[in-house]
Amino acid sequence: MKRITIYDVAKEADVSLATVSRVINDSNVVREDTRQRVQEAIEKLGYKPNAIAQGLALSKTTTISIVMSENLFAYNSRILNGLMDVAKIYNYNIMFHTTSKGISRMQDVIESIIKSRVDGVILFNDNFNDEEMEVLKEYQIPMVIVGARLDRKPEGKVGNVYVNFEKLAYDLVNESFDRGIDDITLVEDKLNLSMMNQLRRGIEKAYEEHGKEFKGYIGYDDSYKSSYNFLTDYYKDKKPSRLVITFRDSQAIAVRNAANEAGWKSMEDYEVISILDSKYLAMVRPPINSYILPEYDMGAIAMRLLTKMLVNDPSVQEDREIEIEYSPMIREKDKTGETEKVTFEAVS
Amino acid sequence: MKRITIYDVAKEADVSLATVSRVINDSNVVREDTRQRVQEAIEKLGYKPNAIAQGLALSKTTTISIVMSENLFAYNSRILNGLMDVAKIYNYNIMFHTTSKGISRMQDVIESIIKSRVDGVILFNDNFNDEEMEVLKEYQIPMVIVGARLDRKPEGKVGNVYVNFEKLAYDLVNESFDRGIDDITLVEDKLNLSMMNQLRRGIEKAYEEHGKEFKGYIGYDDSYKSSYNFLTDYYKDKKPSRLVITFRDSQAIAVRNAANEAGWKSMEDYEVISILDSKYLAMVRPPINSYILPEYDMGAIAMRLLTKMLVNDPSVQEDREIEIEYSPMIREKDKTGETEKVTFEAVS
Repeated sequence: MKRITIYDVAKEADVSLATVSRVINDSNVVREDTRQRVQEAIEKLGYKPNAIAQGLALSKTTTISIVMSENLFAYNSRILNGLMDVAKIYNYNIMFHTTSKGISRMQDVIESIIKSRVDGVILFNDNFNDEEMEVLKEYQIPMVIVGARLDRKPEGKVGNVYVNFEKLAYDLVNESFDRGIDDITLVEDKLNLSMMNQLRRGIEKAYEEHGKEFKGYIGYDDSYKSSYNFLTDYYKDKKPSRLVITFRDSQAIAVRNAANEAGWKSMEDYEVISILDSKYLAMVRPPINSYILPEYDMGAIAMRLLTKMLVNDPSVQEDREIEIEYSPMIREKDKTGETEKVTFEAVS
Repeated sequence: MKRITIYDVAKEADVSLATVSRVINDSNVVREDTRQRVQEAIEKLGYKPNAIAQGLALSKTTTISIVMSENLFAYNSRILNGLMDVAKIYNYNIMFHTTSKGISRMQDVIESIIKSRVDGVILFNDNFNDEEMEVLKEYQIPMVIVGARLDRKPEGKVGNVYVNFEKLAYDLVNESFDRGIDDITLVEDKLNLSMMNQLRRGIEKAYEEHGKEFKGYIGYDDSYKSSYNFLTDYYKDKKPSRLVITFRDSQAIAVRNAANEAGWKSMEDYEVISILDSKYLAMVRPPINSYILPEYDMGAIAMRLLTKMLVNDPSVQEDREIEIEYSPMIREKDKTGETEKVTFEAVS
């Protein structure tokens, strides 16, 4: 079957292309009998109006660009699901852009966003530097940045849907101090540097307020193939901190395995917590504590915020910063030095 | 800064919109001095040609739709990386569509693909039924289906980049027979039913050729919140099969945990293998064997195949089925009934 074009419809209805276009775009300058003839031709031929041509005629593409780092696909899948579901409700087309080391320069991504004249952009944090953000702002495309809090208050047409990682880390350290624990480590995560900085600021703030200095940042160089290899070496002759904080699940599991295999006992010698939750944390033994971040909701809220920004909804003229609540996910309890087994399950 | 449009350029150069459009689209019917005046206006104003208008003029959008199930996003991230990297090389725009139970009917996705007049489509298997595939085929849009092998040889403009899961399962069972193991279980995976069917066919074929009947398919109903809960009940009074096959990593880990906790010994009482590999399989103790499927390559090859189909490359006129090789990933060895510890590492 040949693809039916607007030309075929015009021929069939014996009208001009412009007339067909006007009918498709619900213009009211077309005479009723002509409109009917065009409609009949459309139905007879089974013509599907071209969304792109339609967009042009209405000078509105209803297209949103989502920009995401390739490295973080698997970790952002729930946020993406939330974004996509709301985009579907509003009938947006989604253009997908990925950034990756080596193959796609950020300039090219910006260029392609601007050239395709999208209506709005969703960015994951850690993708754009200040200079690149400025370029996008100049073009006045509404943007929502999802994930971490922006260091500066967003100006122009920029929204931010975020988890306050600085506050999370600050509260976590204060609770640990209350439990008598002040020997704390934060393990570097090179994939999420802006989150890392925010966690570190929160920890340092809590230490300072208690007149202490935080010295527990563990960075490791790229010569190590994995956190596990590094930590296995590290814990060979060093006791883990009483509390070890990691950002991602796989790093927390690496701490768990390396410490266990070096003979250290969970909840007696050390405990480990992952900021991001994942089902795999429930599958290691003992299971690992974490935080539940409502990631699907973050995506859905970010897309909804963008929708409001696109129509200049007054409710988002002033406030385009939305903080998302999190809650702790306790899988292994600490009771005054004693390990208490809690029920856990491996979700599959 | 106001967004510069083609109207501004036309005004600045004192020419018609059509002339600006012709210059942008490299038409040679424009006089050289006019062309220069338009180019100067474009540079002066910093105008970015609208990719959509450009596409229309060239009757070529260079846009590819990728259709993927929301549930499987995290599992397909490496395939997606391969797709995106090759798409970038060819400067394609990527439209992203997701399917999900309840919220997006497949008809709507098809409708939106057809309306946006994309040049080609990448589908993940398990997304479309035969009837829906027929609809897409009628519109003659080149399509590549990635993941599992199509049950029927692709006709029309359809390509297929796949892992032969039937052969994989057939070989695995034959090797197990050679090791004296014929007590084998396949655990149901409702998210990947077409892969399930292919694995099952391969297993049944191997059994039949040995004059045996395969009875080891474990299905479980949705009332169980997770494979782990189901399997914990299941292994309470039943010994696991000597070889348990699962499709996804989390199911294999659920088998490992449920069997271990019921007191069964890995490699003595049972062994478990996951068809899909993941880093988490290296992180459980003992680590779990799997298959390395070159997923990034699958994505890259699928997009490259589509590229060739788009230009009617003669090399893909006949053969649009590409089988991808896999290799076993042995993390725990079985040596005549004796467990041999091998070196393993947790990648992070």
